[in-house]
Amino acid sequence: MKKTVVFLSDHTGLTAEAMGMSLLSQFRDIDYDVIHKPFVDSREKVQQVVREINHIAAQTGEQPIIFSTLVDPEIRQPLKDCQCLVLDYFESYTHILEKELKAAADYRHGQVHSMANANAYRNRIHAVNFALTNDDGAITRSYPDADLILLGVSRSGKTPTCLYMGLQYGVLAANYPLTEDDLQTPQMPKALREYKDKLYGLTIDPMQLQRIRQERRSNGRYANLEQCRWEVDAAEKLYKRHQIPFINSTAMSIEEMAVKILADLGVKH
Amino acid sequence: MKKTVVFLSDHTGLTAEAMGMSLLSQFRDIDYDVIHKPFVDSREKVQQVVREINHIAAQTGEQPIIFSTLVDPEIRQPLKDCQCLVLDYFESYTHILEKELKAAADYRHGQVHSMANANAYRNRIHAVNFALTNDDGAITRSYPDADLILLGVSRSGKTPTCLYMGLQYGVLAANYPLTEDDLQTPQMPKALREYKDKLYGLTIDPMQLQRIRQERRSNGRYANLEQCRWEVDAAEKLYKRHQIPFINSTAMSIEEMAVKILADLGVKH
Repeated sequence: MKKTVVFLSDHTGLTAEAMGMSLLSQFRDIDYDVIHKPFVDSREKVQQVVREINHIAAQTGEQPIIFSTLVDPEIRQPLKDCQCLVLDYFESYTHILEKELKAAADYRHGQVHSMANANAYRNRIHAVNFALTNDDGAITRSYPDADLILLGVSRSGKTPTCLYMGLQYGVLAANYPLTEDDLQTPQMPKALREYKDKLYGLTIDPMQLQRIRQERRSNGRYANLEQCRWEVDAAEKLYKRHQIPFINSTAMSIEEMAVKILADLGVKH
Repeated sequence: MKKTVVFLSDHTGLTAEAMGMSLLSQFRDIDYDVIHKPFVDSREKVQQVVREINHIAAQTGEQPIIFSTLVDPEIRQPLKDCQCLVLDYFESYTHILEKELKAAADYRHGQVHSMANANAYRNRIHAVNFALTNDDGAITRSYPDADLILLGVSRSGKTPTCLYMGLQYGVLAANYPLTEDDLQTPQMPKALREYKDKLYGLTIDPMQLQRIRQERRSNGRYANLEQCRWEVDAAEKLYKRHQIPFINSTAMSIEEMAVKILADLGVKH
């Protein structure tokens, strides 16, 4: 059975998609055709979508499933004529919250993924630029401003994790690559000594590291398994010696790492 | 009134947060204290959270609101003893979907923001690296692989948008900065001529551009308002002349731009 799944939103559809994906991931054996319908912000546009969906339902003989985050009950109205299952997030919860908060909802769309909160948005852009400027230890003079500094050997996953923390949370994340010089002495690298409370380490399975490095530059010592083993081992020793918290990036997604690091370091977001 | 809001999850909590924020953004006059509770993946941990929340309820005289995405009904059980309003996403919808799909849910947590789908995850990491390598037109030889190429004058918002499309969607987004040389001739820049269907332009309000450039490098022609006006005007002319679709980044968030660009170009994600 192949189900048509529609993410319907008056704005970007990111929330509708997050909701839908987390529910659908609970049903492993079902195949989906996904249709994205962002920026559906008028009754007419909803009517058009309903026509499309009814057409699919008639053609396939299967009723599609809509995950909807249409905020305005007025705009939502035409969904009542749809040959489909509608899971409407705002319809389910807004009234419960209005009762609890003893306040009326605004029914304005696009509040989360827009620039509605201009300050928070500027912080996120600033944080992305911060992560880019402070990538790979190129510049250490902005470490006093950093919320955290991620350590790790080359290709252990520092850069995407820092970028994600900037984009998602507006957290100022710098990263510092542990070089062979750093790994050969028991001391903490000079540039990091003043920032002990901001440090967090990444480690990685040496075989995985070798694979990643080979994709990038296959020849020479850099992608040699022995070299990867030695670097990872020395990095972990350094973390333990200086009580730097660390996680293994081998089986963790960027999101998992970001959430864990921020929680462990107690960085507000 | 200040409400305590809890994002409770057996995994990263990103879905719980997206849901909660989009609902709460409908109530402008309410102040919140936000508590993140990620990785709460056992009955014992839920019991601990319930104790904390009951303590807050007793101290403040206000019942907190929990946005929960706990997948497993067994683990969810202790929430029944909580002095709070629980909006439980899986509890609300899983049974409806089970009925519709005529299948039993797996109740496995962490399916969306983990590496459960290893291929999709690798694609996203690859796409982030692609965006970094193909930032600022440094390298044009991978344009054949790009899903899209974002054009714009310096500081018009290309880089964060490309990074976001990589991180969120695994889309291969390169970007090409329009230089003065490019803007002085009516021709399409040489490096772009073969890729007409992949091109998308950004434009920006010249005063906003000046502000952004001043923050970066205040002196010289680069951040001069006249220069910004000339560049933006020439860029828009170039887009129109060559029928390149474009959007104005001034009042749009990264998410809004990304969703619009992918929809306009018809890039699958």
